[in-house]
Amino acid sequence: DRPFVLIAGPCQIESRDHALEVARALADISRRTGVPVIYKSSYDKANRTSASAARGIGMAAGLQILADVRAATGLPVLTDVHTAEQCAPVAEVVDVLQIPAFLCRQTDLLLAAGETGRAINVKKGQFLAPWDMANVAAKIAGTGNHNILLCERGVSFGYNTLVSDFRALPIMARTGYPVVFDATHSVQQPGGQGTSSGGQREFAPVLARAALAVGVAAVFIETHPDPDHAPSDGPNMIPLRAMEALVSRLAAFDGLAKQAD
Amino acid sequence: DRPFVLIAGPCQIESRDHALEVARALADISRRTGVPVIYKSSYDKANRTSASAARGIGMAAGLQILADVRAATGLPVLTDVHTAEQCAPVAEVVDVLQIPAFLCRQTDLLLAAGETGRAINVKKGQFLAPWDMANVAAKIAGTGNHNILLCERGVSFGYNTLVSDFRALPIMARTGYPVVFDATHSVQQPGGQGTSSGGQREFAPVLARAALAVGVAAVFIETHPDPDHAPSDGPNMIPLRAMEALVSRLAAFDGLAKQAD
Amino acid sequence: DRPFVLIAGPCQIESRDHALEVARALADISRRTGVPVIYKSSYDKANRTSASAARGIGMAAGLQILADVRAATGLPVLTDVHTAEQCAPVAEVVDVLQIPAFLCRQTDLLLAAGETGRAINVKKGQFLAPWDMANVAAKIAGTGNHNILLCERGVSFGYNTLVSDFRALPIMARTGYPVVFDATHSVQQPGGQGTSSGGQREFAPVLARAALAVGVAAVFIETHPDPDHAPSDGPNMIPLRAMEALVSRLAAFDGLAKQAD
Amino acid sequence: DRPFVLIAGPCQIESRDHALEVARALADISRRTGVPVIYKSSYDKANRTSASAARGIGMAAGLQILADVRAATGLPVLTDVHTAEQCAPVAEVVDVLQIPAFLCRQTDLLLAAGETGRAINVKKGQFLAPWDMANVAAKIAGTGNHNILLCERGVSFGYNTLVSDFRALPIMARTGYPVVFDATHSVQQPGGQGTSSGGQREFAPVLARAALAVGVAAVFIETHPDPDHAPSDGPNMIPLRAMEALVSRLAAFDGLAKQAD
Repeated sequence: DRPFVLIAGPCQIESRDHALEVARALADISRRTGVPVIYKSSYDKANRTSASAARGIGMAAGLQILADVRAATGLPVLTDVHTAEQCAPVAEVVDVLQIPAFLCRQTDLLLAAGETGRAINVKKGQFLAPWDMANVAAKIAGTGNHNILLCERGVSFGYNTLVSDFRALPIMARTGYPVVFDATHSVQQPGGQGTSSGGQREFAPVLARAALAVGVAAVFIETHPDPDHAPSDGPNMIPLRAMEALVSRLAAFDGLAKQAD
Repeated sequence: DRPFVLIAGPCQIESRDHALEVARALADISRRTGVPVIYKSSYDKANRTSASAARGIGMAAGLQILADVRAATGLPVLTDVHTAEQCAPVAEVVDVLQIPAFLCRQTDLLLAAGETGRAINVKKGQFLAPWDMANVAAKIAGTGNHNILLCERGVSFGYNTLVSDFRALPIMARTGYPVVFDATHSVQQPGGQGTSSGGQREFAPVLARAALAVGVAAVFIETHPDPDHAPSDGPNMIPLRAMEALVSRLAAFDGLAKQAD
Repeated sequence: DRPFVLIAGPCQIESRDHALEVARALADISRRTGVPVIYKSSYDKANRTSASAARGIGMAAGLQILADVRAATGLPVLTDVHTAEQCAPVAEVVDVLQIPAFLCRQTDLLLAAGETGRAINVKKGQFLAPWDMANVAAKIAGTGNHNILLCERGVSFGYNTLVSDFRALPIMARTGYPVVFDATHSVQQPGGQGTSSGGQREFAPVLARAALAVGVAAVFIETHPDPDHAPSDGPNMIPLRAMEALVSRLAAFDGLAKQAD
Repeated sequence: DRPFVLIAGPCQIESRDHALEVARALADISRRTGVPVIYKSSYDKANRTSASAARGIGMAAGLQILADVRAATGLPVLTDVHTAEQCAPVAEVVDVLQIPAFLCRQTDLLLAAGETGRAINVKKGQFLAPWDMANVAAKIAGTGNHNILLCERGVSFGYNTLVSDFRALPIMARTGYPVVFDATHSVQQPGGQGTSSGGQREFAPVLARAALAVGVAAVFIETHPDPDHAPSDGPNMIPLRAMEALVSRLAAFDGLAKQAD
């Protein structure tokens, strides 16, 4: 029942300057609101809708920038891994390894991530029932690593649409592992723009409030100084300038939800 | 942005004594928590899963009991109507007519309800998109009656399961009509027990909190002194003795959600 | 394992001439292909998306036209009923009463329909699991009328979309009642055009072939001389001039499916 | 409009003897029915529900057995790949590389598979709309390899359930690539037995008939001499002794579907 953690950052690592700009803003927000922040950004978008979409800066350059963010701001950092081989080198730099939703059943990736000893944030697949995440967590726990976060990011609901089932939060919490709500990807419209995914940015704060009212350990919100020109997930990222007010509001809901019943 | 209203009561009108017992308890809760209560109960369950399930006390007897509840407690009362013919006589007794979800597209029923001039609470069909409720409301508004409430009660998600899409609340609010969240039927498992519907009572308070954090005008929660022996919706009704604590908690979330942003 | 029956006709009864034109064409197709035809048309569209959409010719005029169709062509006729009161007068004219999908759980309607002794075609609700149709059929059978048809017409799949689950056909057949596949409404996109439903006419023949390969007693296909100018369901009706070729193809699939395994 | 191909075999490569037994039986069925067969079997189940489930015989041993099957029976062979690194060595042995459904958006895997020049069978993700497979195919085609098959294997429909949308077959065919229907995994109930997936074997032949009536280039059906004791997918595999009758029936539907309209 500790206060919630905010996992935030731009979808992609665009450049060192860009990453530091966002990280410093988030560190300021963390100081002013008292909400702990984990900085999130990806060095590779390995499953874009279309092959022509930007893939990202690459692992070596990306990890160097994440190390710089960590050193410059003191924020812990999180990034996603896509193959078993990436886990060890990524774990040398980041605090939290993230397993993408499409890959949440890939046993070798889960085991390699678990063996790093780092915290692992597993996104629940869009095709998975919340109770089935117990099996996913058990794969990681089998490595002796119990530092596991389980993350709801929407479940398939017809075509090109996701729905957030808030029953999933208490159901996943029965595993004993902290539960994260990803407000950004829950409002994604997968493939909804033909060769890229659409999104409904306006619902991200709404669903984040709902998640905190239900009770979660962390909320995941991607943010960008200029979402409409971001290389990915622009339609569902929150403008950086709107984050402080949002985080303050969310902290109030979190505090209320965690008062003794 | 007025405080939320609680629509509550036992699923069925079982007897005059039973109705008054629950209504007096709810009136007390309303007084102590400051949350306005509308008393809800049905005189006919017109669409039970199985023909052998209890149908209810009937319209004449039911309306008399609702009139008694109203007189004895001062609570406004709500009940559902199933045919155009029922609307006028029901409107002589109750404050709010409710359109069942399966019937939310039946034009004659909507028009007859609208023409009574009473407030109308329309449940969104389990098969309907939230934006399609604008057409439903327009049918009623065409009678000159704009006293309309739009109610989310879950949407079909595979077989025997509903999911609550909290984006539906702000989407329906764009109509300008107050939005209600039905926490009881949203956790129903339609037909899930073979010849009756199942339910997941434990998630009703969870989803109610989420709805109030998102922001709604009213929450609908069925309650019963002994849900496990109720003639219908037992698996998803809240025990009456648990209601006061729940309503107090919900009021806190409502207050927070309605603070100036 | 008798040959399949075609239930066909224009969505709405538009006029006596229009009805007779389509009925005569269908009677000719029946003669030439050997496929028995039941003529289907509605006198009232009681649940249109929007109140401003055309409702239909009304019950009295509609029943007179259906009687004329029956007399002029010898085809049995089918129409849908929307209230318990309509069942008896409709049963005086038509051979098959049809229960609309949204109303398939309304007990009074099912009982009144059953009590007419006529055949009853019940559309499965878009919100209902196929195994739950056993309870629906049992309501009718409780009146002593076992002349029941169970009809698949698509199940909710996200918003504004239906999907045809072909497992539903053998599952409903376990009841012992003949199973119908409605190829027209299965490709409907409910509410998909804002104030009316869209449709995907091109998939109706595809799904009808699949249904006959799986094995059904009847296929339901709406047809119109000029679908693009029809007052309802235009986007999913088959042009009348395309029906004979389609019916011949379907008969071949039916024959193959019903060969001894 | 050539006759359909049957992709068949046991889910896992269990041993050399087991593989040859099934392959010889399938080669006999192919000879007797005239239906071309591609032998399918997996050397690694990389995404089992639970970490304690059997993973498989491994790549080196598995590829040797597939080479033996190919040599002994003359059947082309197909197996799935899970990482970019596996593609080149697997392509030295097999005729068709298969991309698992969960991995159908992993760009590196698609590119590595495409670069082998082998035929690629891509399973459509349970989370993907059929029109979005055009983007998936374009990733592979970008390598210059147009030898692509697109495979429907069910789409998420609530929790632990899939539904087969037969509109997906003509929609995917618009890409110009041959379309495969996987009748085995379409009747899977993912995670439906707690720590393993359930299945509904009885519906596989039903859905295969429907697919052939709609029109496909190939059908995928897993088979096993003793499905109830198979290490994976037992609940949805067809007993080997039932395959010949099934294939003969399917060939008749295929022939009818491909007659000139």
